[in-house]
Amino acid sequence: MATDTFTAVQFGVGPIGARVVRAAKARGVEFVGAVDVDPEKVGRDLGEVADLDERLGVPVTDDANEALADDPDVVFHSTVSSIEAARSQFESILDAGANVVSTCEELVYPWRDHASTAAAVDELARDAGATVLGTGINPGFVMDAMPAVLSTPMESVSAVRVERVQDAGVRREPLQRKVGAGTTVDRFEDEVADEAGHVGSPESTAMLAAALGWDLDEVTETIEPVVADDRLETDHLTVDAGEVAGVHQVATGYVDDEAVLTLDLKMAVGLDSRDVVDFDGHPDVTVTVDGGFHGDVATSAVVTNCAPRVVAADPGLATMLDLPLPSVVRAST
Amino acid sequence: MATDTFTAVQFGVGPIGARVVRAAKARGVEFVGAVDVDPEKVGRDLGEVADLDERLGVPVTDDANEALADDPDVVFHSTVSSIEAARSQFESILDAGANVVSTCEELVYPWRDHASTAAAVDELARDAGATVLGTGINPGFVMDAMPAVLSTPMESVSAVRVERVQDAGVRREPLQRKVGAGTTVDRFEDEVADEAGHVGSPESTAMLAAALGWDLDEVTETIEPVVADDRLETDHLTVDAGEVAGVHQVATGYVDDEAVLTLDLKMAVGLDSRDVVDFDGHPDVTVTVDGGFHGDVATSAVVTNCAPRVVAADPGLATMLDLPLPSVVRAST
Repeated sequence: MATDTFTAVQFGVGPIGARVVRAAKARGVEFVGAVDVDPEKVGRDLGEVADLDERLGVPVTDDANEALADDPDVVFHSTVSSIEAARSQFESILDAGANVVSTCEELVYPWRDHASTAAAVDELARDAGATVLGTGINPGFVMDAMPAVLSTPMESVSAVRVERVQDAGVRREPLQRKVGAGTTVDRFEDEVADEAGHVGSPESTAMLAAALGWDLDEVTETIEPVVADDRLETDHLTVDAGEVAGVHQVATGYVDDEAVLTLDLKMAVGLDSRDVVDFDGHPDVTVTVDGGFHGDVATSAVVTNCAPRVVAADPGLATMLDLPLPSVVRAST
Repeated sequence: MATDTFTAVQFGVGPIGARVVRAAKARGVEFVGAVDVDPEKVGRDLGEVADLDERLGVPVTDDANEALADDPDVVFHSTVSSIEAARSQFESILDAGANVVSTCEELVYPWRDHASTAAAVDELARDAGATVLGTGINPGFVMDAMPAVLSTPMESVSAVRVERVQDAGVRREPLQRKVGAGTTVDRFEDEVADEAGHVGSPESTAMLAAALGWDLDEVTETIEPVVADDRLETDHLTVDAGEVAGVHQVATGYVDDEAVLTLDLKMAVGLDSRDVVDFDGHPDVTVTVDGGFHGDVATSAVVTNCAPRVVAADPGLATMLDLPLPSVVRAST
């Protein structure tokens, strides 16, 4: 798979979008447009906004049609988590006939909770002859597509538990603040919990259940603080013992009152990062990613590494379950 | 994915073929024919030959055309490791217009070492409107497709090392004998080494290199005995200290004189089974399957779990890199 003949537009140049630009540039992608609504970014060169060492000769614009005028092969989309909020953006991109790889969490598997919007985007994509994929490290890979493919050598699976533990201490300051690190347990429950949560667990749950052929009766989600036993310090903040170090979120899928699918996510300061997939079945299998896949690096990698599969795919709204096995795209030399 | 509407023919009812029949039956597949050349099996019921608890009403025949007469959706093929030796069998199956999932090791990725035969099978399959896939746990998954997909969240990969360690002590006696367990080092080197080796390392090497976009200059293979430090005993044989416990086989792929791809396989009595994928790159990632994927169980699982993907695929000779993400097929209830 290669991307060094692709032209692209970056739609949304926030922290993740900027990483996608850098990852795509490293793979030889040529950018022909960039969209962002932030007045601080509009008019500046994409290379500068994305923290590249070079100018790309592509100004950031807040006019999507202008950015899309050069018929890009693919649009990297990274704006919001909500498929409804992003819908008009997808419409603009598909009007221009471009393929889309998006980090919109709800787009990763919208067929359960946003089925009518998913069907509408699918139809637009088919009409446009373009493919749309939502992906990223989570949702998109580590708690859904990866466990699905790791089940291939199993004779049978009766339950699966995916544990993702991320040390928030090595992540960006906004993420540390978002998960509540350094706040009190009371304040976490009053003010932080609603905002602290990872978006995408329902989508991962639905995708993995679909891959395993399970028809879930019920999905529950819990969110709790991870409380620090000892004082913790990051480059950005301090967590005293008894304060919140981060967030612990569990999504559980049930069939006939049995918890068959558990996605357990901890993102907190001071944890040992790892990803673990644990199958009950024949045979019992446990797969561990030592150190885990780093959230920021991995999302931009998944997005750019899937681009060749998206460009080659049949038109429509695809999920990671529909595309051929992705793999890393070699950096251009 | 479901297989409970599929009709199938089992082509080759040896130990692996029998396991495939049992795995497919557990997933609701209906067998409509079976082929084997062994006079001990011809005329007997497939259920009996495959060690099922039930008769299937399908006699094993040595006449492929007779077995294929009922237009099966898929043929599970498990006869020989050599694509050349299996070629006329594939021709018979494709003449009947059926899809094929085969454990023929050289079919798993024949595009480097058997390119003209691969092209011929591909053309036959396209003409027949059928899909052909070679797969299994190894080659087919653990040392090629799995590392490929695990590279998806990587920013870049500079080298990959896959280690597969299988305790031969829990495997079938013929396999223990085949890897040389219980023989002397001298005898291993004189008589066993040529026969002991796993077939498929060149195919796995080529497939993984293709997935990673690497053009290998050279591939080397070594085979050595694993020598027992202490006396070892299995249900079938004894290995004294200093005798051979099994086989250690390494395939190495080079780019510009650098070893960038290493497939290291140990199959010996007394080992701790595990599969490990170790990426050098950004970031460094190590993925471990505790206990490893058990060879016999996993091959029949991969074959049957990939069947829905093969039936749904575009016609032609496919590899695991061409099909959408496989996953376990739910057993029928």
